[in-house]
Amino acid sequence: MDKREYALKMHREWRGKLSVNVKSPISSKEELAVAYTPGVAEPCLEIAKNEALAYEYTGRGNTVAVITDGTAVLGLGDIGPLAGMPVMEGKCALFKTFADIDAIPICINSKDPQVIIDTVYNISKSFGGINLEDISAPRCFQIERELAEKCDIPVFHDDQHGTAIITCAGLLNACKVTGRSLGNLKIAIIGAGSAGISIARMILSFGFGDVILCKSQGTIYEGAPYNNEEQNKIAKITNKSNVAGGISDAIKGADILIGVSKPGVVTEEMISSMSKDPIVFALSNPVPEIMPDLAKRAGAAVIGTGRSDFPNQVNNVLAFPGIFRGVLDARAAKITDEMKEAAARAIASVIPDSELSLDNVLPSPFNPLVVKKVREAVMQAAIKEK
Amino acid sequence: MDKREYALKMHREWRGKLSVNVKSPISSKEELAVAYTPGVAEPCLEIAKNEALAYEYTGRGNTVAVITDGTAVLGLGDIGPLAGMPVMEGKCALFKTFADIDAIPICINSKDPQVIIDTVYNISKSFGGINLEDISAPRCFQIERELAEKCDIPVFHDDQHGTAIITCAGLLNACKVTGRSLGNLKIAIIGAGSAGISIARMILSFGFGDVILCKSQGTIYEGAPYNNEEQNKIAKITNKSNVAGGISDAIKGADILIGVSKPGVVTEEMISSMSKDPIVFALSNPVPEIMPDLAKRAGAAVIGTGRSDFPNQVNNVLAFPGIFRGVLDARAAKITDEMKEAAARAIASVIPDSELSLDNVLPSPFNPLVVKKVREAVMQAAIKEK
Repeated sequence: MDKREYALKMHREWRGKLSVNVKSPISSKEELAVAYTPGVAEPCLEIAKNEALAYEYTGRGNTVAVITDGTAVLGLGDIGPLAGMPVMEGKCALFKTFADIDAIPICINSKDPQVIIDTVYNISKSFGGINLEDISAPRCFQIERELAEKCDIPVFHDDQHGTAIITCAGLLNACKVTGRSLGNLKIAIIGAGSAGISIARMILSFGFGDVILCKSQGTIYEGAPYNNEEQNKIAKITNKSNVAGGISDAIKGADILIGVSKPGVVTEEMISSMSKDPIVFALSNPVPEIMPDLAKRAGAAVIGTGRSDFPNQVNNVLAFPGIFRGVLDARAAKITDEMKEAAARAIASVIPDSELSLDNVLPSPFNPLVVKKVREAVMQAAIKEK
Repeated sequence: MDKREYALKMHREWRGKLSVNVKSPISSKEELAVAYTPGVAEPCLEIAKNEALAYEYTGRGNTVAVITDGTAVLGLGDIGPLAGMPVMEGKCALFKTFADIDAIPICINSKDPQVIIDTVYNISKSFGGINLEDISAPRCFQIERELAEKCDIPVFHDDQHGTAIITCAGLLNACKVTGRSLGNLKIAIIGAGSAGISIARMILSFGFGDVILCKSQGTIYEGAPYNNEEQNKIAKITNKSNVAGGISDAIKGADILIGVSKPGVVTEEMISSMSKDPIVFALSNPVPEIMPDLAKRAGAAVIGTGRSDFPNQVNNVLAFPGIFRGVLDARAAKITDEMKEAAARAIASVIPDSELSLDNVLPSPFNPLVVKKVREAVMQAAIKEK
């Protein structure tokens, strides 16, 4: 049976990757009278007096909603809300497996950003956090920003920040192993969607160096007004020398290349035009912008992909379980830039210097230190901000 | 420790009565690649081609949302959405315990019926059914009606129909044991909220006889326009002799009295004024309209309450688990009046005639035949309607 058939067979057998488990036994009248009426009235009345007690008397403090509108599911594009549900269930399974968080998959039957914002806000009191997933750019920026402002719980668009956090964690270690110091590096990012823009922002706030973003129509620079407001904003703080042109112009002389675009758009020639021992993260998945063997042949020193069958996997599961575990445990109302940076440093720190190598700049998601360190780093950042 | 303290203690220990269980193992890269990327793309693509396959490849077909706005929680009134969550979690625990249905508690942060309708509709594709709970009348009527029209899954307001179904099940058996035949009975219903109106409708469609509804301002009759549109509608089909007056006028000479109002509003004198061997269901909970010992002293033959510490408990858990199990298994898009009647007859039939008695007109919710028979009856009704 090929992999496609096997994945379908297993999904048919599971018929949903999640089920509900009941923690309150209900096997007698007496137990029913505690977990349900009349006993249940007591915690209701306590919460009515003080909303914060929902964290004591209900599951709110350990529950995260994983929400999509189905417009940018994996690399499959706008396949609709219901077709996004297997991914949302999978994400919820990861939340539970890696961080013991009870996550609920929800798909929204609208593409209108305001409808999505209102809908998520209206159900937000049911949860302790909201993970937005697979929502297309630039809509995802507005949706996350407005929800984070309105809700009293953390809101996190994983496709933006998760990818940025892991990428930066990998880059911190990749710079170490290639002997680079942060400050004056040149970074090219191919792809200017939610992940590309979010990675650019985080690279700048870490102080790696100057970033040039390049979309399919060419490099992004200030003064060339874009329809996409986020691209106009990022143009102001990137591409200091106003490099115009296409992918090869963006990449030429760069220390770091990050692809968050399409399979095969990067050639060996482009890699050869980079600085010595360049760092290449080709994150288009499952088919990267350039295959690792070709990138290596063209001179790339550190190569990362989104795939588990090559070294240095940039895998979002390194970040979101620990981040949410941290904000839930700290009962933080926001996921701040400081927490995201702390999470990236924590992930990078999981690999001791003695074990760092060209093929080992990111830890395995199955290393239990990952969630532990990310959680602690996020909680410390939360405490500082209080 | 008193019962109040014990209920609070247990709710603090559980910290939420539900948790998520993962059915797809994720303990290795290989397993991750099936349940998540890249394997998960396959079921996504299948569902994108044919939405119905969500029932094969996701948990939709076994998932029910339990949704409130917190406006009519138990007998506690409008205590707010978050304060209603312990009840929603409890209800979800009952769904799982009695019918192996994975239910998700959700509270809506708005009291505007249109906002509630839009919000629930927008998330409805995530679920295989929607159980509305503890939403105040008359808002609940509009909300249920419009959602049932818009959604492609069953929508059920349990406070209306659940109570009506169990009440009718109990009445069917109570009429048997008191030697009454359906047709010309007189039924008084004290309380004209969501439960009272729904019970009246169902009693009429079963053909028990004429119903007089009575609210705190007096009996409901045609021609006295009410602000509440549902009360205007029910006035047209009840109270054929236009009885005016208060509770005592409604009850006088009645065969059946159903209270869905407030503690203590029914007196012994009122019971004495009923027909011989009357049936009294005093469902205000936990304190009924008249206590069973008083009703008995005044001549009541069959007495039902909402409480588990008296005989003949009218308990919604007798209906909703089997009803949803039935519609989910039949993949029915609606819960029809025929299904509700079939459910009531099924519940009544659980007690064999030889075991029926004045103190045994309704089965225990822990009798496994209840869910089984209700499920089968609902499925048969669903097949007939297809």
